[in-house]
Amino acid sequence: MSSDIKGLNEECGVFGVYNHVQAAHMTYYGLHSLQHRGQEGAGIVVSDGDKLEQSKGHGLVTEVFDESKLAHLPGQKAIGHVRYSTTGDKSYENIQPLLFQSQTNTLSVAHNGNLVNASRLRSALEDEGSIFQTTSDTEVIAHLIRKGGKQPSHKRIKASLKQLEGAFAIVMLHDNQLIAALDPRGMRPLSLGKVGDSYVIASETCAFDVVGADYVRDIQPGEYLVIDENGVNSSYFSEPNDRAICTMEYVYFARPDSQVDGDNIHRTRKQLGKKLAETDPVEADVVTGVPDSSISAAIGFAEASQIPYELGLIKNRYVGRTFIQPSQELRERGVRMKLSPVRKVVEGMRVVIVDDSIVRGTTSRRIVSMLKEAGAKEVHVRITAPPIKHPCFYGIDTSTSSELIAANYSVEETREKIGADSLCYLTSEAMVNVIDRDDESKNQGHCLACFTGNYPTEIYDHSVLPHEKEQSVEHSTS
Amino acid sequence: MSSDIKGLNEECGVFGVYNHVQAAHMTYYGLHSLQHRGQEGAGIVVSDGDKLEQSKGHGLVTEVFDESKLAHLPGQKAIGHVRYSTTGDKSYENIQPLLFQSQTNTLSVAHNGNLVNASRLRSALEDEGSIFQTTSDTEVIAHLIRKGGKQPSHKRIKASLKQLEGAFAIVMLHDNQLIAALDPRGMRPLSLGKVGDSYVIASETCAFDVVGADYVRDIQPGEYLVIDENGVNSSYFSEPNDRAICTMEYVYFARPDSQVDGDNIHRTRKQLGKKLAETDPVEADVVTGVPDSSISAAIGFAEASQIPYELGLIKNRYVGRTFIQPSQELRERGVRMKLSPVRKVVEGMRVVIVDDSIVRGTTSRRIVSMLKEAGAKEVHVRITAPPIKHPCFYGIDTSTSSELIAANYSVEETREKIGADSLCYLTSEAMVNVIDRDDESKNQGHCLACFTGNYPTEIYDHSVLPHEKEQSVEHSTS
Amino acid sequence: MSSDIKGLNEECGVFGVYNHVQAAHMTYYGLHSLQHRGQEGAGIVVSDGDKLEQSKGHGLVTEVFDESKLAHLPGQKAIGHVRYSTTGDKSYENIQPLLFQSQTNTLSVAHNGNLVNASRLRSALEDEGSIFQTTSDTEVIAHLIRKGGKQPSHKRIKASLKQLEGAFAIVMLHDNQLIAALDPRGMRPLSLGKVGDSYVIASETCAFDVVGADYVRDIQPGEYLVIDENGVNSSYFSEPNDRAICTMEYVYFARPDSQVDGDNIHRTRKQLGKKLAETDPVEADVVTGVPDSSISAAIGFAEASQIPYELGLIKNRYVGRTFIQPSQELRERGVRMKLSPVRKVVEGMRVVIVDDSIVRGTTSRRIVSMLKEAGAKEVHVRITAPPIKHPCFYGIDTSTSSELIAANYSVEETREKIGADSLCYLTSEAMVNVIDRDDESKNQGHCLACFTGNYPTEIYDHSVLPHEKEQSVEHSTS
Amino acid sequence: MSSDIKGLNEECGVFGVYNHVQAAHMTYYGLHSLQHRGQEGAGIVVSDGDKLEQSKGHGLVTEVFDESKLAHLPGQKAIGHVRYSTTGDKSYENIQPLLFQSQTNTLSVAHNGNLVNASRLRSALEDEGSIFQTTSDTEVIAHLIRKGGKQPSHKRIKASLKQLEGAFAIVMLHDNQLIAALDPRGMRPLSLGKVGDSYVIASETCAFDVVGADYVRDIQPGEYLVIDENGVNSSYFSEPNDRAICTMEYVYFARPDSQVDGDNIHRTRKQLGKKLAETDPVEADVVTGVPDSSISAAIGFAEASQIPYELGLIKNRYVGRTFIQPSQELRERGVRMKLSPVRKVVEGMRVVIVDDSIVRGTTSRRIVSMLKEAGAKEVHVRITAPPIKHPCFYGIDTSTSSELIAANYSVEETREKIGADSLCYLTSEAMVNVIDRDDESKNQGHCLACFTGNYPTEIYDHSVLPHEKEQSVEHSTS
Repeated sequence: MSSDIKGLNEECGVFGVYNHVQAAHMTYYGLHSLQHRGQEGAGIVVSDGDKLEQSKGHGLVTEVFDESKLAHLPGQKAIGHVRYSTTGDKSYENIQPLLFQSQTNTLSVAHNGNLVNASRLRSALEDEGSIFQTTSDTEVIAHLIRKGGKQPSHKRIKASLKQLEGAFAIVMLHDNQLIAALDPRGMRPLSLGKVGDSYVIASETCAFDVVGADYVRDIQPGEYLVIDENGVNSSYFSEPNDRAICTMEYVYFARPDSQVDGDNIHRTRKQLGKKLAETDPVEADVVTGVPDSSISAAIGFAEASQIPYELGLIKNRYVGRTFIQPSQELRERGVRMKLSPVRKVVEGMRVVIVDDSIVRGTTSRRIVSMLKEAGAKEVHVRITAPPIKHPCFYGIDTSTSSELIAANYSVEETREKIGADSLCYLTSEAMVNVIDRDDESKNQGHCLACFTGNYPTEIYDHSVLPHEKEQSVEHSTS
Repeated sequence: MSSDIKGLNEECGVFGVYNHVQAAHMTYYGLHSLQHRGQEGAGIVVSDGDKLEQSKGHGLVTEVFDESKLAHLPGQKAIGHVRYSTTGDKSYENIQPLLFQSQTNTLSVAHNGNLVNASRLRSALEDEGSIFQTTSDTEVIAHLIRKGGKQPSHKRIKASLKQLEGAFAIVMLHDNQLIAALDPRGMRPLSLGKVGDSYVIASETCAFDVVGADYVRDIQPGEYLVIDENGVNSSYFSEPNDRAICTMEYVYFARPDSQVDGDNIHRTRKQLGKKLAETDPVEADVVTGVPDSSISAAIGFAEASQIPYELGLIKNRYVGRTFIQPSQELRERGVRMKLSPVRKVVEGMRVVIVDDSIVRGTTSRRIVSMLKEAGAKEVHVRITAPPIKHPCFYGIDTSTSSELIAANYSVEETREKIGADSLCYLTSEAMVNVIDRDDESKNQGHCLACFTGNYPTEIYDHSVLPHEKEQSVEHSTS
Repeated sequence: MSSDIKGLNEECGVFGVYNHVQAAHMTYYGLHSLQHRGQEGAGIVVSDGDKLEQSKGHGLVTEVFDESKLAHLPGQKAIGHVRYSTTGDKSYENIQPLLFQSQTNTLSVAHNGNLVNASRLRSALEDEGSIFQTTSDTEVIAHLIRKGGKQPSHKRIKASLKQLEGAFAIVMLHDNQLIAALDPRGMRPLSLGKVGDSYVIASETCAFDVVGADYVRDIQPGEYLVIDENGVNSSYFSEPNDRAICTMEYVYFARPDSQVDGDNIHRTRKQLGKKLAETDPVEADVVTGVPDSSISAAIGFAEASQIPYELGLIKNRYVGRTFIQPSQELRERGVRMKLSPVRKVVEGMRVVIVDDSIVRGTTSRRIVSMLKEAGAKEVHVRITAPPIKHPCFYGIDTSTSSELIAANYSVEETREKIGADSLCYLTSEAMVNVIDRDDESKNQGHCLACFTGNYPTEIYDHSVLPHEKEQSVEHSTS
Repeated sequence: MSSDIKGLNEECGVFGVYNHVQAAHMTYYGLHSLQHRGQEGAGIVVSDGDKLEQSKGHGLVTEVFDESKLAHLPGQKAIGHVRYSTTGDKSYENIQPLLFQSQTNTLSVAHNGNLVNASRLRSALEDEGSIFQTTSDTEVIAHLIRKGGKQPSHKRIKASLKQLEGAFAIVMLHDNQLIAALDPRGMRPLSLGKVGDSYVIASETCAFDVVGADYVRDIQPGEYLVIDENGVNSSYFSEPNDRAICTMEYVYFARPDSQVDGDNIHRTRKQLGKKLAETDPVEADVVTGVPDSSISAAIGFAEASQIPYELGLIKNRYVGRTFIQPSQELRERGVRMKLSPVRKVVEGMRVVIVDDSIVRGTTSRRIVSMLKEAGAKEVHVRITAPPIKHPCFYGIDTSTSSELIAANYSVEETREKIGADSLCYLTSEAMVNVIDRDDESKNQGHCLACFTGNYPTEIYDHSVLPHEKEQSVEHSTS
């Protein structure tokens, strides 16, 4: 289900390129392929070896940049960022990459993920006189690096990164070098690719395919990668901890043509659908998915269950930014946008609808009722992940606990609320087994915090009493 | 395959509503669901019983209208239009509905289709002193109606419609009445729906689902429908001719959730895919479709052939209006937008790619080469319609004959040019049988002109020597 | 006083150029110098000998056009138009020049003035089947010309012009010719200039200075000028009537550097100020004008009266289109924009304020009270024209009679209402004598209708009972 | 002569208001009246006692703000800034007021003037780890204040201000207080006004008149003014030095209705014109000024010389931002914008043109030649200030020395270059005497650096070898 109708929003995406004559263009195409990770704003910073130039703005990559803007971004190194649409602080200053210019050197940073000790670090820095321009976590990183002044060394940068807690996949331009770093648990994806003599770094490998690059390898937890004229130099700023890569990247966020930890996302989702058909079978006439994210899983479910896969729901591709919501009255009369049922497909049918998550339940309820109004005899909902019961502090904009339907209601209550004839979730265990391809050795660890409440890090800024937690989630993520 | 990458562009879409307190909003939602029929411009004209108000502009429905614009369109009757993006005359004046105000009455017209005698009619009108403001066929209709002056009667309107040759599905607002008319061969779809006490008219039935209306029936060839306080009054302005509904509406244009002539488009396309699997089977490992229009056919092909259906191609959903094309150099390096292969799905595989048409062949060639670069062992192309060899004069922007690959090369030559391992088209006969569900009685006639060159009408303005035909296609359609 | 704060709005301005390699640029500069005649919209139509291209839009000339738009207007002939901001119909279609394209010929028309029989002509044309796209008088002209169809001859054009009643200064592009025509009473100014081998036509001669052209002569009442490869060909479409050039052009509208009927406007206004100092002297310490239009008259008044001329009122040059009006509360506290008194100049002084007209009286009242609050001991208002008591039907947007303060109150009542210590107007006779430089032979006639109610033409469409007149003024002028 | 055609650009303007229910609106009107001091960008920061909100943007005050933006700026205290258009760094971040938010307090600063030791201070701060977001001097002030961290006290702020060298008129919002401070030489104007229970601070007193406030007094050199619920509290952060108020404020920058140091600008300029008529008389027929800044002086010259004052040059009021410059060819043909001669006024006349400065000489040359082409027999140029020979480091964007005509040529050479029949400047002494009204006691000192090269402060960052000076001037001023 698409983020705009679901309330489960992706964080951000980062991209970097080293040694390409059209670095800004490469970044433009790379960011465009990462657009699903954030649609609020986009930015590019290029280095021509001498100085950094930036361009950024609100909106989609194709809206922010045109040929003339790219023409004003000369240089062979670049980093870029797409930012997701929070309801919170949409100020221009927060659009990344952030650029920090001093009289002796420059630094630019783009960041995907969320720090859990940003607030503490920021207080300490402000007490010592630092002035912050943004409300973004990312600026904390720059202040740590610059603290002590003068030219930052790799040693200092690594010491700064070590102070950060939470999820961070970072690309930086500094001193003619492209730097990539990943948090010690590897909570967000970050990969290295190569095209000709150029290196590229991206949040997802789909960006490599788009710019014609070959996948080289994933950045490792705690790794610090410096790319310069001497090639790729790898070191570690931290002992790697147990890995805890975000499970929702597999289930929902990443593009089907990306591969995370070596596994293709479409394939993984298809397997999740197959598994669900095994663990929670149902007699039905038609299987359908919710476009776009659960199509792969629906195909898998259909294949395993031998129930025909059909287009039961159509998504309108032209939903714009300023879409006018139907009034309450029109909505009751059945006026709806974005998703339409295909009446002739579902009429008189027992329909299985495969989806990847239920957040607040409102969309699921709407889909079920839409299908029933269109004549579906039964609607069976199958979810390719466990119920989401806990907020994420690592960069995903889940609703607060009070809004998460699974935090407040049992599966049976949820089923009743959304009006489905049956509702089943995949178990954590089954899901992890699919993702790990039943390969024990692969089981390096996933973050399951939103399902289980077991956060892989201390959560510092958010360590509050449960009933106060709701407020604490409203940080700006990136 | 989407129009923006294919060179096969839809005409337009029309919508009308009678007796709804939120007529402008209904039209907005209706047009939005018809957006796939045209993205260049959109307009709405409302009548509050007294006078007509219009609002229109370049771009998508969601870009042209916002809440404040709709608020300035009061009234209980409305018509609307979405216009497709020609390379030709994009002037503001040409955006429909056209509105003609005189001191004693007003008339607004929206038109889908293309007249083949517009040029002749216009010359005659101009010779008699008519002044035209647009280059649109549609204005000819208004001039015919107004000629003779004073208040036009239904008799005069019908006499005017009788003079038109070609394809036209028209909605009009006149004198507090909503009027719908369809050309004598019914070349374009046009349907009547009902929601509460309101009537709606739309180019496709998907618009009914979106606004909560029930499908009543299709407008008949030569029919003239007047909706006013006395309800729906049907008459005919012309003897119906042999019906000749556009086949490409089934194969390519209409939305999968629409039904044309009683048949659901998704189902029809799925059947076309199944038939193709029977008539042109192939040994393969994976079936994939080209998003979005050939997904249904690919599912059908997979089901019939028992080869698994997979997402082998991903379409970037965020391709904007001002997208920057990769330079030649970057394109050669493999930089690509819009469509990406899913490497892990096609690598080492024999892939069947199901599509609905090949126009110039460039996109097909690009897709085949993309899949091969991603590792596909074999690529078999299956097209759910016959080769397109002739230009359309009835409202579809096919390329001129000189650009149509099938007009210049045999199937085998085409296969070689696009680099496929095999290439098969469905025959006209097989296609028509599927569309008619092997029901002889249904076989009222389809327009197959672009496949066969047998145009169902005289083509007047275009009756030129074959080698001159190319130029004559550049009329503005609507 | 500037039009935006006065409620007395200029009509429009026209410009034409023949045989200049940069015809569009010349028109741009020419229109820019005529911008004071209209700020709502601007348009240019060029002819490259083959076809006409147009570009137009809402706003100032510098807002509507940029280098790239001008670059798309190739050709050696051009006409242009600036349009004033009515409260009425601001639709895009009404922006001139209007362009009429038929399959065999094209015609473009730009018009300054207002017809008084447009409504009648239009009704007749509509009764015969003409379709109008705009609410503009100008379109009537085109329909008359095209009526009868085929290629219009000069004979037909002249016959059409003869049917028009009212004020019209017209430029046209037709058949590779630039045509200029002026109504039989010469109510609006229109002049011919020459620069190198090029001819230019403009509403005011200030446009000649800006484009480096030399003034040749004024177009004569009833004259029909055709400029083509044979040079300038003059004829008459009508017997000239008694001339009736608009007096307000001298007093208020024209730019100080223009000359009308051979007389420089600055000089004429200065003489009006001098005459006023003679006919209505007053003991005072300071003379000031209301920027910008009455500065010349104030200088004259000061010179004749030997009272020092000072800047007593400053006009803010940066008042934009979307200026936020102070709330009632702030206005009462003294918050004001646009005009500020120069406190140190008026404090303790007896101030003469020279202005060119009082329309509704609100601005005059505001100025007087502003000066008094700033410490002026006395404020004496001197107006360089008689009281405006009647609406104008020839292209000036005066308020309706009910709003004209002089139509409803005596001079003494008006003085009291605006709070001045004295108020004097120049008499009609004195004003006309100044304008004619006491040269009887020059006294070919001026339109004094807004002062006297003696309209120089029948007023056809407006021939209604006095109490109904108010409504009839709301026609769109150009 | 207006800045856009002269190359002598104003710095900036600041405004502040305390305790007004419509603080943002008041600031809007205040900034609008200061618009002549800067047209590049504008910003407003308001405090509702709790937190600060900002809104800013490129362009004029009326372009940046609309009613809805002001509605989102609630609070009873506000500061605002208009920024001038450099050719240099136009980035959004540099638009003031700058806003610095920490977790415990907020600070907003707007600054008019230029620091001469900004670069040194910045280097030192960066060496200690400060991160700068802008290239503006103003940010240095904030870093000095915040250094040492925690809540800044007035003591710390004053200590910070003491470190600054150069020109600075500052308004700040901090901790619910409105703070104003002026550099120890009082190089820029800054005044205190009162309206009802509200206090206002502004760069020029014209802002007081516009918002209905009464002038209270000027802020004194070295003064530190805190306005809070206890009223106005004055102290000093520095011993006052010899005063050195910018002379060009009197001669050129300030609005005619402002008063600087108690003297009305219009009056002062008129006196300068009179003095010039005494010191450098000439036999002539007509006196004219260059609109808008030298009109007052021209009136004075005319009055003293008994030569009639006329409008000899007309300025086009509609010159927009994106004005298209005539090509070289058109310019040579005489196509000109912005300024036009009034032919009938200057033809055959000996013309005195009064102006306030000659920077590069190009505009003066153009004006002289324009007048001669229009028929002037003689053109005598009179300048109400001495020749400008040295760059300004205190906030005025004079050209570099190499471009200043007076730095490179004698008066006689300059006269020849601009083509005038005579050219005279007022002497420093005469100018200062007029400004001081021959009152010795008033002679507290003026900055005459651009005329004499005697800079009233050390110039630190700019202390370079003369031939290197050119480059050093390109700092961003505010």
